[in-house]
Amino acid sequence: MSTPVTAQMVNELRGRTGAGLLDCKKALVESNGNAEEAIIILRKKGAASAAKKADRTTKEGLIESYIHVGGKVGVLIEVNCETDFVARNDGFKAFVRDLCLQIAATSPLYVSRDQVPEPEIAKEREIAAAQVQGKPPAAAQKIVDGKLEKYFSTVCLVDQSFVKVPEKSVKDILTEAIARTGENIQIRRFVRFQLGS
Amino acid sequence: MSTPVTAQMVNELRGRTGAGLLDCKKALVESNGNAEEAIIILRKKGAASAAKKADRTTKEGLIESYIHVGGKVGVLIEVNCETDFVARNDGFKAFVRDLCLQIAATSPLYVSRDQVPEPEIAKEREIAAAQVQGKPPAAAQKIVDGKLEKYFSTVCLVDQSFVKVPEKSVKDILTEAIARTGENIQIRRFVRFQLGS
Repeated sequence: MSTPVTAQMVNELRGRTGAGLLDCKKALVESNGNAEEAIIILRKKGAASAAKKADRTTKEGLIESYIHVGGKVGVLIEVNCETDFVARNDGFKAFVRDLCLQIAATSPLYVSRDQVPEPEIAKEREIAAAQVQGKPPAAAQKIVDGKLEKYFSTVCLVDQSFVKVPEKSVKDILTEAIARTGENIQIRRFVRFQLGS
Repeated sequence: MSTPVTAQMVNELRGRTGAGLLDCKKALVESNGNAEEAIIILRKKGAASAAKKADRTTKEGLIESYIHVGGKVGVLIEVNCETDFVARNDGFKAFVRDLCLQIAATSPLYVSRDQVPEPEIAKEREIAAAQVQGKPPAAAQKIVDGKLEKYFSTVCLVDQSFVKVPEKSVKDILTEAIARTGENIQIRRFVRFQLGS
Protein backbone atom coordinates (compact mmCIF):
# COMPACT_ATOMS: atom_id res chain seq x y z
CA MET A 1 0.00 0.00 0.00
CA SER A 2 1.55 3.24 -1.06
CA THR A 3 1.06 6.69 0.49
CA PRO A 4 -0.94 8.90 -1.85
CA VAL A 5 1.16 11.68 -3.34
CA THR A 6 -0.69 14.98 -2.91
CA ALA A 7 -0.25 18.18 -4.88
CA GLN A 8 0.96 19.87 -1.68
CA MET A 9 3.76 17.29 -1.24
CA VAL A 10 4.81 17.80 -4.84
CA ASN A 11 4.83 21.57 -4.39
CA GLU A 12 6.87 21.36 -1.21
CA LEU A 13 9.41 19.17 -2.92
CA ARG A 14 9.57 21.57 -5.86
CA GLY A 15 10.18 24.39 -3.43
CA ARG A 16 13.02 22.51 -1.77
CA THR A 17 14.72 21.20 -4.91
CA GLY A 18 13.69 23.44 -7.78
CA ALA A 19 13.11 20.28 -9.85
CA GLY A 20 10.28 20.01 -12.36
CA LEU A 21 6.71 19.06 -11.41
CA LEU A 22 6.76 15.68 -13.11
CA ASP A 23 10.19 14.75 -11.74
CA CYS A 24 9.04 15.61 -8.21
CA LYS A 25 5.88 13.58 -8.55
CA LYS A 26 7.78 10.55 -9.90
CA ALA A 27 10.38 10.79 -7.15
CA LEU A 28 7.70 10.96 -4.45
CA VAL A 29 5.88 7.96 -5.91
CA GLU A 30 9.19 6.08 -6.03
CA SER A 31 10.03 7.04 -2.41
CA ASN A 32 6.52 6.17 -1.25
CA GLY A 33 5.85 9.75 -0.18
CA ASN A 34 9.09 10.19 1.78
CA ALA A 35 10.37 13.67 0.94
CA GLU A 36 13.97 13.05 2.12
CA GLU A 37 14.29 9.94 -0.04
CA ALA A 38 12.67 11.76 -2.94
CA ILE A 39 15.37 14.47 -2.67
CA ILE A 40 18.08 11.81 -2.87
CA ILE A 41 16.39 10.29 -5.93
CA LEU A 42 16.21 13.74 -7.56
CA ARG A 43 19.85 14.51 -6.72
CA LYS A 44 21.00 11.24 -8.29
CA LYS A 45 18.96 12.02 -11.38
CA GLY A 46 20.37 15.54 -11.40
CA ALA A 47 23.91 14.22 -11.26
CA ALA A 48 23.19 11.77 -14.07
CA SER A 49 21.66 14.38 -16.33
CA ALA A 50 24.39 16.90 -15.42
CA ALA A 51 26.98 14.44 -16.70
CA LYS A 52 24.99 14.11 -19.93
CA LYS A 53 24.95 17.91 -20.35
CA ALA A 54 28.68 18.36 -19.83
CA ASP A 55 29.46 18.39 -23.55
CA ARG A 56 26.95 21.05 -24.54
CA THR A 57 28.32 24.42 -25.62
CA THR A 58 28.21 27.24 -23.08
CA LYS A 59 28.60 30.65 -24.66
CA GLU A 60 26.32 32.73 -22.46
CA GLY A 61 26.59 33.40 -18.77
CA LEU A 62 27.56 36.04 -16.27
CA ILE A 63 30.55 37.94 -15.05
CA GLU A 64 30.14 38.80 -11.40
CA SER A 65 32.29 40.32 -8.71
CA TYR A 66 32.45 40.53 -4.97
CA ILE A 67 34.36 43.04 -2.89
CA HIS A 68 34.69 42.24 0.78
CA VAL A 69 33.81 45.07 3.19
CA GLY A 70 36.76 47.45 3.42
CA GLY A 71 37.99 46.71 -0.10
CA LYS A 72 40.91 44.46 0.89
CA VAL A 73 39.71 41.33 -0.92
CA GLY A 74 37.99 41.13 -4.29
CA VAL A 75 36.84 38.40 -6.65
CA LEU A 76 35.93 38.42 -10.32
CA ILE A 77 34.35 35.34 -11.89
CA GLU A 78 32.97 34.17 -15.23
CA VAL A 79 30.37 31.41 -15.22
CA ASN A 80 29.00 30.17 -18.53
CA CYS A 81 25.68 28.59 -19.39
CA GLU A 82 23.92 27.80 -22.66
CA THR A 83 21.37 30.57 -23.01
CA ASP A 84 21.00 34.20 -21.99
CA PHE A 85 17.62 33.20 -20.58
CA VAL A 86 19.31 31.16 -17.85
CA ALA A 87 22.03 33.79 -17.38
CA ARG A 88 19.34 36.31 -16.44
CA ASN A 89 17.62 33.85 -14.09
CA ASP A 90 17.71 34.78 -10.38
CA GLY A 91 18.71 31.27 -9.31
CA PHE A 92 21.68 31.31 -11.68
CA LYS A 93 22.68 34.77 -10.44
CA ALA A 94 22.50 33.56 -6.84
CA PHE A 95 24.65 30.55 -7.74
CA VAL A 96 27.30 32.82 -9.28
CA ARG A 97 27.22 35.12 -6.24
CA ASP A 98 27.68 32.12 -3.95
CA LEU A 99 30.77 31.13 -5.93
CA CYS A 100 32.19 34.66 -5.49
CA LEU A 101 31.70 34.47 -1.72
CA GLN A 102 33.22 31.00 -1.67
CA ILE A 103 36.34 32.18 -3.52
CA ALA A 104 36.68 35.27 -1.30
CA ALA A 105 36.49 33.07 1.79
CA THR A 106 38.62 30.10 0.74
CA SER A 107 41.17 31.44 -1.79
CA PRO A 108 41.19 28.53 -4.24
CA LEU A 109 43.92 28.65 -6.90
CA TYR A 110 42.25 26.67 -9.70
CA VAL A 111 38.74 25.89 -10.89
CA SER A 112 39.33 22.13 -11.04
CA ARG A 113 42.16 19.62 -10.69
CA ASP A 114 42.81 19.34 -14.42
CA GLN A 115 44.11 22.92 -14.19
CA VAL A 116 46.73 22.16 -11.55
CA PRO A 117 50.14 22.15 -13.29
CA GLU A 118 51.76 18.68 -13.38
CA PRO A 119 54.90 19.85 -11.48
CA GLU A 120 52.69 21.10 -8.62
CA ILE A 121 51.03 17.69 -8.33
CA ALA A 122 54.41 15.93 -8.48
CA LYS A 123 55.70 18.18 -5.69
CA GLU A 124 52.68 17.48 -3.48
CA ARG A 125 53.02 13.75 -4.14
CA GLU A 126 56.71 13.88 -3.19
CA ILE A 127 56.00 15.72 0.07
CA ALA A 128 53.27 13.24 0.95
CA ALA A 129 55.52 10.27 0.08
CA ALA A 130 58.28 11.62 2.32
CA GLN A 131 55.82 11.76 5.20
CA VAL A 132 54.87 8.06 4.95
CA GLN A 133 58.35 6.56 4.65
CA GLY A 134 58.64 3.23 6.48
CA LYS A 135 54.96 2.33 6.16
CA PRO A 136 53.93 -0.77 4.16
CA PRO A 137 53.71 0.22 0.47
CA ALA A 138 49.95 -0.45 0.12
CA ALA A 139 49.09 1.63 3.19
CA ALA A 140 51.58 4.31 2.14
CA GLN A 141 49.98 4.59 -1.30
CA LYS A 142 46.56 5.01 0.29
CA ILE A 143 47.80 7.76 2.60
CA VAL A 144 49.54 9.57 -0.27
CA ASP A 145 46.36 9.40 -2.36
CA GLY A 146 44.40 10.73 0.60
CA LYS A 147 46.82 13.61 1.08
CA LEU A 148 46.59 14.48 -2.61
CA GLU A 149 42.79 14.49 -2.39
CA LYS A 150 43.09 16.82 0.59
CA TYR A 151 45.39 19.06 -1.44
CA PHE A 152 42.93 19.21 -4.37
CA SER A 153 40.06 19.98 -1.98
CA THR A 154 42.09 22.95 -0.73
CA VAL A 155 43.29 24.51 -4.00
CA CYS A 156 40.53 23.50 -6.45
CA LEU A 157 37.25 25.41 -6.25
CA VAL A 158 34.97 22.55 -7.30
CA ASP A 159 36.61 20.10 -4.88
CA GLN A 160 36.17 22.45 -1.92
CA SER A 161 33.54 22.04 0.71
CA PHE A 162 30.81 24.63 0.02
CA VAL A 163 31.11 27.30 2.73
CA LYS A 164 27.37 27.92 3.02
CA VAL A 165 26.53 24.20 3.28
CA PRO A 166 29.72 22.42 4.36
CA GLU A 167 28.28 18.90 3.90
CA LYS A 168 28.20 19.59 0.16
CA SER A 169 31.08 20.23 -2.20
CA VAL A 170 31.09 23.10 -4.70
CA LYS A 171 30.77 20.38 -7.35
CA ASP A 172 27.51 19.26 -5.72
CA ILE A 173 26.22 22.83 -5.90
CA LEU A 174 27.26 23.05 -9.53
CA THR A 175 25.50 19.76 -10.30
CA GLU A 176 22.36 21.03 -8.60
CA ALA A 177 22.49 24.25 -10.60
CA ILE A 178 22.78 22.21 -13.80
CA ALA A 179 19.81 20.07 -12.75
CA ARG A 180 17.78 23.14 -11.78
CA THR A 181 18.42 25.09 -14.97
CA GLY A 182 18.52 22.15 -17.34
CA GLU A 183 21.64 23.62 -18.95
CA ASN A 184 25.31 22.78 -18.97
CA ILE A 185 27.14 25.24 -16.69
CA GLN A 186 30.89 25.86 -16.66
CA ILE A 187 32.86 27.84 -14.12
CA ARG A 188 35.19 29.30 -16.71
CA ARG A 189 37.65 31.41 -14.71
CA PHE A 190 38.10 33.55 -11.66
CA VAL A 191 40.65 35.82 -10.03
CA ARG A 192 40.98 36.80 -6.41
CA PHE A 193 42.91 39.91 -5.38
CA GLN A 194 44.04 40.39 -1.82
CA LEU A 195 45.51 43.77 -0.95
CA GLY A 196 49.30 43.68 -1.08
CA SER A 197 49.66 39.94 -1.64
CA MET B 1 49.73 96.29 -8.87
CA SER B 2 48.52 92.84 -7.94
CA THR B 3 44.93 91.67 -7.41
CA PRO B 4 44.30 90.94 -3.73
CA VAL B 5 43.86 87.21 -3.10
CA THR B 6 40.71 86.75 -1.00
CA ALA B 7 39.83 83.81 1.22
CA GLN B 8 36.90 83.08 -1.09
CA MET B 9 39.23 82.77 -4.10
CA VAL B 10 41.47 80.42 -2.16
CA ASN B 11 38.49 78.32 -1.09
CA GLU B 12 37.14 78.10 -4.62
CA LEU B 13 40.53 76.97 -5.90
CA ARG B 14 40.75 74.37 -3.14
CA GLY B 15 37.33 73.10 -4.14
CA ARG B 16 38.40 72.79 -7.77
CA THR B 17 41.82 71.23 -7.21
CA GLY B 18 41.77 69.59 -3.80
CA ALA B 19 45.19 71.14 -3.16
CA GLY B 20 46.21 72.48 0.28
CA LEU B 21 45.30 75.96 1.55
CA LEU B 22 48.82 77.35 1.43
CA ASP B 23 49.55 75.92 -2.00
CA CYS B 24 46.36 77.46 -3.37
CA LYS B 25 47.16 80.84 -1.87
CA LYS B 26 50.70 80.82 -3.25
CA ALA B 27 49.50 79.76 -6.69
CA LEU B 28 46.90 82.56 -6.75
CA VAL B 29 49.49 85.16 -5.70
CA GLU B 30 51.81 83.84 -8.40
CA SER B 31 49.03 83.95 -11.05
CA ASN B 32 47.94 87.40 -9.90
CA GLY B 33 44.52 86.11 -8.90
CA ASN B 34 43.85 84.24 -12.16
CA ALA B 35 42.26 80.93 -11.16
CA GLU B 36 42.94 79.14 -14.46
CA GLU B 37 46.63 79.98 -14.32
CA ALA B 38 46.73 79.03 -10.67
CA ILE B 39 45.40 75.57 -11.59
CA ILE B 40 48.17 75.15 -14.14
CA ILE B 41 50.75 76.18 -11.53
CA LEU B 42 49.28 73.68 -9.07
CA ARG B 43 49.23 70.91 -11.68
CA LYS B 44 52.89 71.49 -12.51
CA LYS B 45 53.73 71.40 -8.81
CA GLY B 46 51.61 68.27 -8.44
CA ALA B 47 53.49 66.54 -11.23
CA ALA B 48 56.81 67.52 -9.65
CA SER B 49 55.86 66.30 -6.20
CA ALA B 50 54.25 63.15 -7.65
CA ALA B 51 57.60 62.25 -9.18
CA LYS B 52 59.23 62.78 -5.78
CA LYS B 53 56.70 60.47 -4.13
CA ALA B 54 57.14 57.62 -6.61
CA ASP B 55 59.59 55.74 -4.39
CA ARG B 56 57.50 55.70 -1.24
CA THR B 57 56.06 52.37 -0.16
CA THR B 58 52.42 51.68 -0.93
CA LYS B 59 50.97 48.87 1.13
CA GLU B 60 47.44 50.09 1.67
CA GLY B 61 44.78 50.78 -0.92
CA LEU B 62 41.62 49.40 -2.40
CA ILE B 63 40.37 46.51 -4.44
CA GLU B 64 37.41 47.58 -6.51
CA SER B 65 35.29 46.03 -9.23
CA TYR B 66 32.91 47.08 -11.93
CA ILE B 67 30.37 44.92 -13.72
CA HIS B 68 28.84 46.40 -16.80
CA VAL B 69 25.03 46.24 -17.02
CA GLY B 70 24.02 42.76 -18.16
CA GLY B 71 27.06 41.07 -16.65
CA LYS B 72 28.99 40.54 -19.89
CA VAL B 73 32.03 42.64 -18.95
CA GLY B 74 33.72 42.87 -15.56
CA VAL B 75 36.82 44.50 -14.12
CA LEU B 76 38.76 43.89 -10.92
CA ILE B 77 41.51 46.32 -9.89
CA GLU B 78 43.98 46.86 -7.07
CA VAL B 79 45.24 50.40 -6.44
CA ASN B 80 47.75 50.98 -3.67
CA CYS B 81 48.44 54.06 -1.57
CA GLU B 82 50.49 54.67 1.56
CA THR B 83 47.87 54.82 4.31
CA ASP B 84 44.47 53.33 5.04
CA PHE B 85 43.33 56.90 5.73
CA VAL B 86 43.71 57.78 2.06
CA ALA B 87 42.30 54.40 0.95
CA ARG B 88 39.06 55.24 2.76
CA ASN B 89 38.92 58.75 1.30
CA ASP B 90 36.02 59.42 -1.09
CA GLY B 91 38.27 61.10 -3.65
CA PHE B 92 40.56 58.07 -3.76
CA LYS B 93 37.56 55.75 -4.07
CA ALA B 94 36.22 57.84 -6.97
CA PHE B 95 39.64 57.69 -8.66
CA VAL B 96 39.68 53.88 -8.37
CA ARG B 97 36.13 53.64 -9.72
CA ASP B 98 37.08 55.85 -12.66
CA LEU B 99 39.94 53.46 -13.45
CA CYS B 100 37.49 50.52 -13.43
CA LEU B 101 35.20 52.28 -15.89
CA GLN B 102 38.20 53.20 -18.05
CA ILE B 103 39.36 49.57 -18.21
CA ALA B 104 35.85 48.28 -18.94
CA ALA B 105 35.54 50.76 -21.80
CA THR B 106 39.00 50.57 -23.35
CA SER B 107 40.31 47.02 -22.62
CA PRO B 108 43.95 47.86 -21.86
CA LEU B 109 46.27 44.86 -21.55
CA TYR B 110 48.92 46.28 -19.21
CA VAL B 111 49.18 48.93 -16.51
CA SER B 112 52.23 50.61 -18.06
CA ARG B 113 54.73 50.11 -20.88
CA ASP B 114 57.38 48.49 -18.68
CA GLN B 115 54.97 45.54 -18.39
CA VAL B 116 54.71 44.96 -22.14
CA PRO B 117 56.77 41.84 -22.96
CA GLU B 118 59.87 42.61 -25.06
CA PRO B 119 58.80 40.26 -27.94
CA GLU B 120 55.51 42.17 -28.22
CA ILE B 121 57.36 45.45 -28.59
CA ALA B 122 59.75 43.92 -31.12
CA LYS B 123 56.80 42.62 -33.14
CA GLU B 124 55.08 46.03 -33.15
CA ARG B 125 58.33 47.71 -34.17
CA GLU B 126 58.78 45.22 -37.01
CA ILE B 127 55.25 45.80 -38.31
CA ALA B 128 55.75 49.57 -38.14
CA ALA B 129 59.14 49.31 -39.89
CA ALA B 130 57.64 47.26 -42.72
CA GLN B 131 55.07 50.01 -43.28
CA VAL B 132 57.68 52.76 -43.78
CA GLN B 133 60.00 50.94 -46.17
CA GLY B 134 61.46 53.22 -48.79
CA LYS B 135 61.24 56.39 -46.67
CA PRO B 136 64.41 58.24 -45.65
CA PRO B 137 65.84 56.56 -42.51
CA ALA B 138 65.41 59.60 -40.22
CA ALA B 139 61.76 60.11 -41.21
CA ALA B 140 61.14 56.37 -41.04
CA GLN B 141 62.50 56.21 -37.50
CA LYS B 142 60.22 59.05 -36.43
CA ILE B 143 57.17 57.36 -37.91
CA VAL B 144 58.07 54.03 -36.28
CA ASP B 145 58.49 55.75 -32.91
CA GLY B 146 55.14 57.46 -33.38
CA LYS B 147 53.45 54.18 -34.22
CA LEU B 148 54.95 52.58 -31.12
CA GLU B 149 53.66 55.45 -28.97
CA LYS B 150 50.24 54.91 -30.51
CA TYR B 151 50.50 51.20 -29.66
CA PHE B 152 51.41 51.95 -26.03
CA SER B 153 48.55 54.43 -25.74
CA THR B 154 46.21 51.65 -26.84
CA VAL B 155 47.38 48.74 -24.69
CA CYS B 156 48.79 50.52 -21.60
CA LEU B 157 46.28 51.90 -19.12
CA VAL B 158 48.35 54.89 -17.95
CA ASP B 159 49.18 55.92 -21.53
CA GLN B 160 45.54 55.89 -22.59
CA SER B 161 43.45 58.99 -23.03
CA PHE B 162 41.14 59.25 -19.99
CA VAL B 163 37.63 58.41 -21.18
CA LYS B 164 35.86 60.91 -18.92
CA VAL B 165 38.19 63.80 -19.87
CA PRO B 166 39.80 62.85 -23.20
CA GLU B 167 42.25 65.80 -23.20
CA LYS B 168 43.99 64.15 -20.23
CA SER B 169 45.82 60.85 -20.06
CA VAL B 170 45.20 58.32 -17.29
CA LYS B 171 48.71 59.22 -16.12
CA ASP B 172 47.58 62.85 -15.70
CA ILE B 173 44.67 61.65 -13.56
CA LEU B 174 47.03 59.51 -11.52
CA THR B 175 49.39 62.46 -11.01
CA GLU B 176 46.48 64.61 -9.91
CA ALA B 177 45.35 61.95 -7.43
CA ILE B 178 48.90 61.83 -6.02
CA ALA B 179 48.93 65.64 -5.69
CA ARG B 180 45.47 65.67 -4.11
CA THR B 181 46.15 62.95 -1.54
CA GLY B 182 49.80 63.77 -0.92
CA GLU B 183 50.62 60.06 -1.15
CA ASN B 184 52.36 57.84 -3.64
CA ILE B 185 49.70 55.85 -5.55
CA GLN B 186 50.34 52.74 -7.63
CA ILE B 187 47.94 51.00 -9.98
CA ARG B 188 49.12 47.55 -9.04
CA ARG B 189 47.10 45.20 -11.23
CA PHE B 190 43.80 44.67 -12.95
CA VAL B 191 41.90 42.04 -14.88
CA ARG B 192 39.10 42.45 -17.35
CA PHE B 193 36.76 39.59 -18.19
CA GLN B 194 34.58 39.70 -21.25
CA LEU B 195 32.01 36.96 -21.59
CA GLY B 196 33.26 34.16 -23.82
CA SER B 197 36.47 35.86 -24.91
